[in-house]
Amino acid sequence: MTLLIQNGRVITADSDFVGDILCEGEVISHVGPSIAAPPGSEVIDAAGKYVFPGFIDPHVHIHLPFMGTHAKDSYESASRAAIVGGTTTLIEMCCPNREDQPLESFELWLAKAANSACDYSFHMGVSRFDSSTASQLREIVNRGIASFKVFLAYKGAFGVTDEELFATLSLAKELGVIVTAHCENETLVAALQQQLLAAGKTGPEWHEPSRPTQVEAEGVHHLMTFAELTGAHVYCVHTSCREALENVQAARLRGVRAWVETVIPYLTLDKSYAERSNFEGAKYVMSPPLRDRSEQPYLWAALRSRLVSTIATDHAPFDFAGQKDMGLDDFSKIPNGIPSVADRINLLYTHGVCRGRLDLNTFVDAASTQAAKIFGLYPRKGTVQAGSDADLVIYDPGFRGKIAAATQLMNVDYSAFEGWEIEGRPSTVIVRGAVQARDGKFVGELGRGKLLTREPTHF
Amino acid sequence: MTLLIQNGRVITADSDFVGDILCEGEVISHVGPSIAAPPGSEVIDAAGKYVFPGFIDPHVHIHLPFMGTHAKDSYESASRAAIVGGTTTLIEMCCPNREDQPLESFELWLAKAANSACDYSFHMGVSRFDSSTASQLREIVNRGIASFKVFLAYKGAFGVTDEELFATLSLAKELGVIVTAHCENETLVAALQQQLLAAGKTGPEWHEPSRPTQVEAEGVHHLMTFAELTGAHVYCVHTSCREALENVQAARLRGVRAWVETVIPYLTLDKSYAERSNFEGAKYVMSPPLRDRSEQPYLWAALRSRLVSTIATDHAPFDFAGQKDMGLDDFSKIPNGIPSVADRINLLYTHGVCRGRLDLNTFVDAASTQAAKIFGLYPRKGTVQAGSDADLVIYDPGFRGKIAAATQLMNVDYSAFEGWEIEGRPSTVIVRGAVQARDGKFVGELGRGKLLTREPTHF
Amino acid sequence: MTLLIQNGRVITADSDFVGDILCEGEVISHVGPSIAAPPGSEVIDAAGKYVFPGFIDPHVHIHLPFMGTHAKDSYESASRAAIVGGTTTLIEMCCPNREDQPLESFELWLAKAANSACDYSFHMGVSRFDSSTASQLREIVNRGIASFKVFLAYKGAFGVTDEELFATLSLAKELGVIVTAHCENETLVAALQQQLLAAGKTGPEWHEPSRPTQVEAEGVHHLMTFAELTGAHVYCVHTSCREALENVQAARLRGVRAWVETVIPYLTLDKSYAERSNFEGAKYVMSPPLRDRSEQPYLWAALRSRLVSTIATDHAPFDFAGQKDMGLDDFSKIPNGIPSVADRINLLYTHGVCRGRLDLNTFVDAASTQAAKIFGLYPRKGTVQAGSDADLVIYDPGFRGKIAAATQLMNVDYSAFEGWEIEGRPSTVIVRGAVQARDGKFVGELGRGKLLTREPTHF
Amino acid sequence: MTLLIQNGRVITADSDFVGDILCEGEVISHVGPSIAAPPGSEVIDAAGKYVFPGFIDPHVHIHLPFMGTHAKDSYESASRAAIVGGTTTLIEMCCPNREDQPLESFELWLAKAANSACDYSFHMGVSRFDSSTASQLREIVNRGIASFKVFLAYKGAFGVTDEELFATLSLAKELGVIVTAHCENETLVAALQQQLLAAGKTGPEWHEPSRPTQVEAEGVHHLMTFAELTGAHVYCVHTSCREALENVQAARLRGVRAWVETVIPYLTLDKSYAERSNFEGAKYVMSPPLRDRSEQPYLWAALRSRLVSTIATDHAPFDFAGQKDMGLDDFSKIPNGIPSVADRINLLYTHGVCRGRLDLNTFVDAASTQAAKIFGLYPRKGTVQAGSDADLVIYDPGFRGKIAAATQLMNVDYSAFEGWEIEGRPSTVIVRGAVQARDGKFVGELGRGKLLTREPTHF
Repeated sequence: MTLLIQNGRVITADSDFVGDILCEGEVISHVGPSIAAPPGSEVIDAAGKYVFPGFIDPHVHIHLPFMGTHAKDSYESASRAAIVGGTTTLIEMCCPNREDQPLESFELWLAKAANSACDYSFHMGVSRFDSSTASQLREIVNRGIASFKVFLAYKGAFGVTDEELFATLSLAKELGVIVTAHCENETLVAALQQQLLAAGKTGPEWHEPSRPTQVEAEGVHHLMTFAELTGAHVYCVHTSCREALENVQAARLRGVRAWVETVIPYLTLDKSYAERSNFEGAKYVMSPPLRDRSEQPYLWAALRSRLVSTIATDHAPFDFAGQKDMGLDDFSKIPNGIPSVADRINLLYTHGVCRGRLDLNTFVDAASTQAAKIFGLYPRKGTVQAGSDADLVIYDPGFRGKIAAATQLMNVDYSAFEGWEIEGRPSTVIVRGAVQARDGKFVGELGRGKLLTREPTHF
Repeated sequence: MTLLIQNGRVITADSDFVGDILCEGEVISHVGPSIAAPPGSEVIDAAGKYVFPGFIDPHVHIHLPFMGTHAKDSYESASRAAIVGGTTTLIEMCCPNREDQPLESFELWLAKAANSACDYSFHMGVSRFDSSTASQLREIVNRGIASFKVFLAYKGAFGVTDEELFATLSLAKELGVIVTAHCENETLVAALQQQLLAAGKTGPEWHEPSRPTQVEAEGVHHLMTFAELTGAHVYCVHTSCREALENVQAARLRGVRAWVETVIPYLTLDKSYAERSNFEGAKYVMSPPLRDRSEQPYLWAALRSRLVSTIATDHAPFDFAGQKDMGLDDFSKIPNGIPSVADRINLLYTHGVCRGRLDLNTFVDAASTQAAKIFGLYPRKGTVQAGSDADLVIYDPGFRGKIAAATQLMNVDYSAFEGWEIEGRPSTVIVRGAVQARDGKFVGELGRGKLLTREPTHF
Repeated sequence: MTLLIQNGRVITADSDFVGDILCEGEVISHVGPSIAAPPGSEVIDAAGKYVFPGFIDPHVHIHLPFMGTHAKDSYESASRAAIVGGTTTLIEMCCPNREDQPLESFELWLAKAANSACDYSFHMGVSRFDSSTASQLREIVNRGIASFKVFLAYKGAFGVTDEELFATLSLAKELGVIVTAHCENETLVAALQQQLLAAGKTGPEWHEPSRPTQVEAEGVHHLMTFAELTGAHVYCVHTSCREALENVQAARLRGVRAWVETVIPYLTLDKSYAERSNFEGAKYVMSPPLRDRSEQPYLWAALRSRLVSTIATDHAPFDFAGQKDMGLDDFSKIPNGIPSVADRINLLYTHGVCRGRLDLNTFVDAASTQAAKIFGLYPRKGTVQAGSDADLVIYDPGFRGKIAAATQLMNVDYSAFEGWEIEGRPSTVIVRGAVQARDGKFVGELGRGKLLTREPTHF
Repeated sequence: MTLLIQNGRVITADSDFVGDILCEGEVISHVGPSIAAPPGSEVIDAAGKYVFPGFIDPHVHIHLPFMGTHAKDSYESASRAAIVGGTTTLIEMCCPNREDQPLESFELWLAKAANSACDYSFHMGVSRFDSSTASQLREIVNRGIASFKVFLAYKGAFGVTDEELFATLSLAKELGVIVTAHCENETLVAALQQQLLAAGKTGPEWHEPSRPTQVEAEGVHHLMTFAELTGAHVYCVHTSCREALENVQAARLRGVRAWVETVIPYLTLDKSYAERSNFEGAKYVMSPPLRDRSEQPYLWAALRSRLVSTIATDHAPFDFAGQKDMGLDDFSKIPNGIPSVADRINLLYTHGVCRGRLDLNTFVDAASTQAAKIFGLYPRKGTVQAGSDADLVIYDPGFRGKIAAATQLMNVDYSAFEGWEIEGRPSTVIVRGAVQARDGKFVGELGRGKLLTREPTHF
C-alpha cells in the first residue's frame, strides 16, 4: 500500500519544513518538497496541519496486577486510545512480582499484548536478582528487550534490595542495557504512611505528605550513587520535583550517565487536585504524588534545557467506582494511577506549545525522538525520514474540543482532565503505513501491532 | 558536478549506517543503502572509512588585531588549514574595538574573508552599545548575522560595561539573536596581574594564577543573571572549569536559556604546559587559561551529558618568535591564543573517540551538528541528508601520524601539540560538492567560500 | 553605683541559669548563684524574668541623607527607642557620599552621635577609593573603627566600582578589618526600574520586581569571589533569600571567610505588605525588598544552623507623610527603610522564641553575642560575665502589648507593625550599670552613650 | 585542695586574656586578672603558656570487639594517654552487636571504664530496634546517656536497617537525644570489596577504593533525609570529604538539624599513606578511609566556618603485628583504626594553629567546647569559668618534640605519626582540680574518672 501525505508542515526533533512524505508498505520511502503521487496511492492533504513522527510513550502499564486488583485496560482498549491520541508506540513495564520467574512473566506480558493495534516493547522488571533470574534476564535481553526496570519503592512486591540493585546495574552495564528506575525510598513511605494513618489522616490528600519530595530526591540520589559506582546507564522515570532534578544534574557532572523522564500529570496537575473533597482526590493519586504547583516551572525549564529527556504518562487506569474506593478509609490502599495515555499529546501540545513553554521541535523530541534514541528504537521510530517506519501523526492545530470520560477510549470510568479544553488533535494517525485513526476515531486493526525488538546500546 | 561516495560508514549526530551519498551540484541529493552512480559522476570509495558531515568551528579568530599585533592567519591560510583538518565552516568573531563603528567593522571583516576556501559566518562583536551602534546591529542582523559576541573581560578594548551588557541582551532578546560571551571578570584579572607582576612573577606560568577559575565562574554567574532577567539566550564560549559548568547548570534549572562551548585545548592540555621553562610556556597562553588537569573529567562528563554543546578552538595564532615574546618580561603582554583550527578534529577523535570518552554520534554532534543548530545553520550544515550542503569528511581511522609545526598549514611558527600522535585523519574533504582536500593536502580553491547568512531563532 | 539583680534566669549565647548579677560602676563584677547585696546597692528582683546581655543592633542608619531627604531620627530619638526596646549598642553606618572626604564624614557622624543615650560605633562607609581616601581610612581604623561598609548598589552615590571594591577589600585584609556589604547589582536594578516605570508600573508593589532575588544573589556571588581572591573577611548585610544564602554556603566551603546578617523585617513581613493599596505599601519599601513568604523558612533554618550570624534592623525611618510620598508616582523615589530599632527584640522574641523557631541561647547569640564577636566588642559587650560592661536587659515574658505608631519612641509617623501583638518586653534596661529604661519608658540620660573603639581582629 | 594557676594566657572558644584561675576542690572558683593565692594553695606559674579548658574527644573506642579481635587499649592505657595528650574527657562509643541487649552492653562498657583516670561518657550504640530494645534505650537515657550512635555501615554486625534507623531517630526526637551516625552505604562497600578482591586487589591500598567518597556522601545524604522527615537532631561522625560536607550544608538550609565531626587523621594524613609498601599501609586503614589530599582544604575551611563543629579521633588501636596483619591477604580483614587519642591536640595545634589554618579560639571550640555543648556537658566541661569543672590544660608552645611509638602511652605497637614533629605540648594537665600529667608524664590516679551523666537537650 502506498500513501502520500502532501503539503504538511513536517516537524521532527530538529527540522521544520513544508513538504511531502511518501509511505510505501510499512516504511517511509521518500521525504521531499514535492513528491508525485505514484499510481494507486492514497493521497492525504495535510495542508495547514503538522506532520509529526508517531509519538512514543515510554512508560505505560497495561497488564498491571496492583494492590489486589488489576488496571482496567487491555491492549485492545489501551492501544486504540493511544493511537487516537497520537501515540503509535508503547513501552510497557513488564512487572513481575518478587516470587515470579522473569521468563514466565515476560511470556505472560507478551501474550497480553497480542491484540495490540500499535507497536510495543517492554522494560523488563527486575524484582528479584539471583543466579536463576540473572540467566533469564540475559535470555530476555537476547530476545530484544534492551531495558530493565527496578523499583526502589514497593519492597516486598516489585521492589529490590540494595544488593539486588547493585547486581542488576552490574549486569546491565555488562549487557549494555539501560535501567529505568522508580525512585522513592520505600522505608520512608511506609513509616510516614503509618504515622499519618495512626493520626487519623486517611484521605487522599494525605497521599502526598506520605511521599514528600525528599523521599523521591533520596531515591534519585541513591540511584545516582549506585550508577556511578557500577557504570550502568540509568533513567529516572516519573520525576516530579526540583530537588530530584538537582541530584541528577550533580551526578551528570560527576560523570554518571543518567536520563530523566517526567509525566504529563506533573506538568499539568498539582497536589491541590488530590485534596478535592468527597474522595474525588483519589482520582489524582499516583506515585510519586502530584506536587505543589511551585515545582512545575523547574520541570518545564528542565524540559527546555533537555535535562528532562522524555515525557511519558505512567498510564495506569483504575476505576473511581470499585477500585479507587478500595482506599476510601485508607489512602495507602488507593490503587495508584492517573490514566492519560490518550491525552498526553493533546495536553502537551496545548499546555506546552500553545502556552509558549515548548517549541515544536522540543515537543517532538520529548514526546517521541528521545524515547526512540534512549531505548534503541531510533531511527526506526522517532523521526520522519526515508527508511523509518511510517508512523505519522497528522495534527490539526485548529481543532478545539474537551476531554471527557464519556467519550474517551481508555477503559476507565473517569478522566483526571474532565472538561479541559484542548487546542489541537490528531486528524490522521498512521502506523507502519496504515491509517489507524481519523478525527478521534479508531479505524485500525487490532493485533496488527508488533513487538519491537531492540539492541543494547548503553555500553 | 556529481559525486558519489560509496560504502562509507555514515555518522551523524543520531545515525550510524553503511551507505552511499550522492552529491549533485553543491548539495546532497540522495542518501541511501545503495545508490547507482549517475553517468559522469565521480565515485569515491569510502569503504572502511567514516563519512561525517563537515565539521564546524564556531569560535575562531582570523583577522585579529590584539595587544598591538595581529594574529598571523589570513583566510587563505586559515581556511586551507581548517579544510585539511576536516572543518568546512568557520564562524569567526568579528571583534571591533570600542571606538569602531560596527558596520564598518563588519564590512572590514567581510572583506578579509573574501578569499576563504570554506564557508563562514560571523558572531558580531558588541564592544559598545548606544543608539548609533544599536541601529547598526539591527542592520547587521538583517544582513544575516544571527549572533552577537560580548566580552566581559578586556574592558576598554572589546569589553562592555554592565549597562551595555544589559542593553545588548535586551536587543538580542527582541531580535531573537543569541549572545555568545567571553566570561571573565576583568577587574579581577587586572588586579591580580598587577599583584603578580609587582611581586616579580612575570613568566607565563603566572598567567593562570592571574585568571583563576573563580574569575571565570564569576563571569559565568554574572552572565547567567543578566540572561535570566532579560530573557536573552546566551552561549558561554571557551568554558574551562567545573565551577563555571555548575553555574550554568543551576541557571538552566531556573529557566535560563544557556549553552556551553569548550575548546580542544582545555580537553587535551593543562596548565603544566604553560609552566614549561625557557618561556616555552608562552605557547600555551590563552584566556581563560589552561587549567589544572583535575578539571578535565568534568569537561568530558559535561560533553557526554550534552551540558557542553560544542567543541571549538578559539583559534588565534601568534608566532612564538616575534609575537609571543612581546611578553618575555611580562606574561600579561603575551598575545593570547593556542592555534588549533587544523587539529581540532583529529585531536578530538584521538583523545575522545579512540580513548572511549566520546561515542561517534556525540563526536559529530559536538563538533558539527550543535553548532549548526544553535547558530541557525541547520540542516543546511551539520548533518548528512538530502537537501543539505554537500559538506562531507571522509575520515580514515587507520591513519597514523604526528602533528608538527613544520608541516602544518596554519601560518604560525609552532604547534602546541608538536609530536603528538593522531589516530585518524580526513582522507577526503568535500565542501559544497567539491573535493577540497585529499590526504592532508589542500586541493581546493581559495575564494570559493561563501558567507552563510542566518535567520534569528532564539526568541 | 552598685546594682544587684537577683534571681533572674540569666541567658547568654551558651548558658542558662538562675542567679544573681552584681554591677559595680559600669561593669559586671560578679555573677553567681547567690550574691549578698553590698551596702548601699540597689536591688532589682528579676524573679520570673530573663536577664539577657544588652542587645546589639549592628546595622542602623540614624544620620542618613538619602534620596534628597533625611531619615527622621536623631541619636536622641533613636537611642531612646533602642534602649526601651532592649538594644543597648548601636553600630551605625557612616555613609559618606562619593564626593565626601572620609575623615570629615567620620567627624560629622561622630558629632551627630554626641547626645546618644546608648553606646555606639560605626561601620565606615567606603564610597570612593583612591590614595587620599586610603590614608584617611587607615587613620579612621587607628581611631577604633574596625569595619568598613561598601555598597555594590547605589553606584554614583554610595556605591563603589569593582576596582574600588578590590582595593577596599585588599586594604581591609591588610588591616584586619571586616568589610560589610550591601549586595545588589546596581545595573540590573537601574535597568529593571526603567523598564517597569516605562511600562507604567509605578506603585510600591513594583519595588520588589525591580530588585528580584537574582539581583541580590548576583551581588552576593560577586562579593564572595572578590573576598576569595583578596582574602578579606566579609559580612553580607540584610540577606533576604535562599539563593543568596546558598552562594555564601558554597563560598565558605571554598574557604571564603564570610558572615551573614538578616534583618527583622525579612523574618516577619513579606512582599504582600508592599502590595497594599492606597500607597500604604510604601511603608514597606526597603532594599533588598521584602520577599515572597516562601523565603522565610530558609532564613529561620539558616539562623538555627548559624549560617546567619546576626539579626539587625537596617533601621531607616522616613515618614509616610512627606517623605515616603515623594515616590507617589514613582516607586524608585520612595525613601527606603522600615523603621524597627525599637521593635527588633520584641518581634524576634515573639515570632522566634515563642513560636518555637529559635531557642533562647540562639536568640541571644543572634541578637547580641555574634555582633559583639564579629565586630570586636566581645566580651565587653554581648555576654554576661564579670568584667563585661553592665549592659543588661531584664525581660518580662509575661508582658502582652501591641506595637503602635502612636506610642513609639522612634521619630517616624507610622509603624510597619501597627497593631501587632508582642509577647514580652524589657522591664528594665541597664546600660553600663545605670538603669535607662523601665517598663517601656526611657528613664536614662542623653549623651551618656560612648563611642566604642574596636581593634581589628580579621587577619 | 586548692590550686592557683597564675599568669597564663587563658583561651576559651570566645576569649583570650592573661589572668589567673583558682581551683577549689574539683571546680574552678574564680577567674580573674590577679587572684591572691589562698593559704595552703598550690601555685602554678603559667606565664608564657596557654591555659585551655580540658579537651574533649567525642569519638573514641576503648572496649572494642571488632573483626574477631579486640582493640588493644583498656581505660587504664587510653585514659592515661588521653590525659598526657591534653584530653580530659572521653566519649566512648558503646557498641553492642545486633544480638546483644542494650542494657547489658551498657553495663559492660560501664564496668570497663571503672579504672579510668579521666571523665567519660558514652554514645549508646543502637544496633537493633524493637520494642524490647526501645524500652532499654529509654532506661539508658534516663541514666544520663543523651546520645545514640548508629552505623549505616556494618549491617549484620553493628549496622541498622532503614526501618530501625527511622525508629531510632523517632525515639531520639521524642527523647531529645542526638543521634551520631557512621555514614557509609554498606551494600556498596560490600560489593566493591568483593569486586576488588576478586580482581586480586588485596592490599591495604585498595581499602579506599572499596569505600570511595560517593559511598560516604550517599550515607550522609541518606541520614539527612531521615533526619528531615523525623525531625531528629543528628551528628555525622568522622566526615572526610567535600561531597559529604555539601550534603550537610544543603540539608541545613532545608532545616535539618545536623552537626559534623571530622577526625585528626583526615586533617593530617591522606590515602598515599595507605599505599605504602610492605603492608605498612595497613597502619593507615580506618573507615571512612584516608582520602585524596585534595579533600583537606575543604575540611579546614569547614572547620573555620564552623560547619565542622568538632575534631575527634575515632581512636581504635590495633597492633600492626598480630592484628593488622589479619588482613595481610585481604584488606577487608584489616582491623580498622588509626590510634590518635594521645596525639590529637598536639597535631591539631601544630598543623592547625602553628600553620595558620585555625586561630586559637576555634582550636578550643573544635577540640573542646562544641563537644561539650552538643553533647550536654556544657558549661561543666568545655570552658574556663567559675563553676565549671577544673579541667585545665597548661600548654607549652615552646616545646619541640617528636611522636614515637616507643614512647607513647597508647597500648599499640606503632604510631601513624612516627617521627612527626610537634610544636607544643601540655606541660600540666588538671582533671577536676587535680594535676594528672606533667611534661608528658602521667602523674594521676586511675579510677578517679567519673561517668558524666547528661540531660537531653535536642528537642
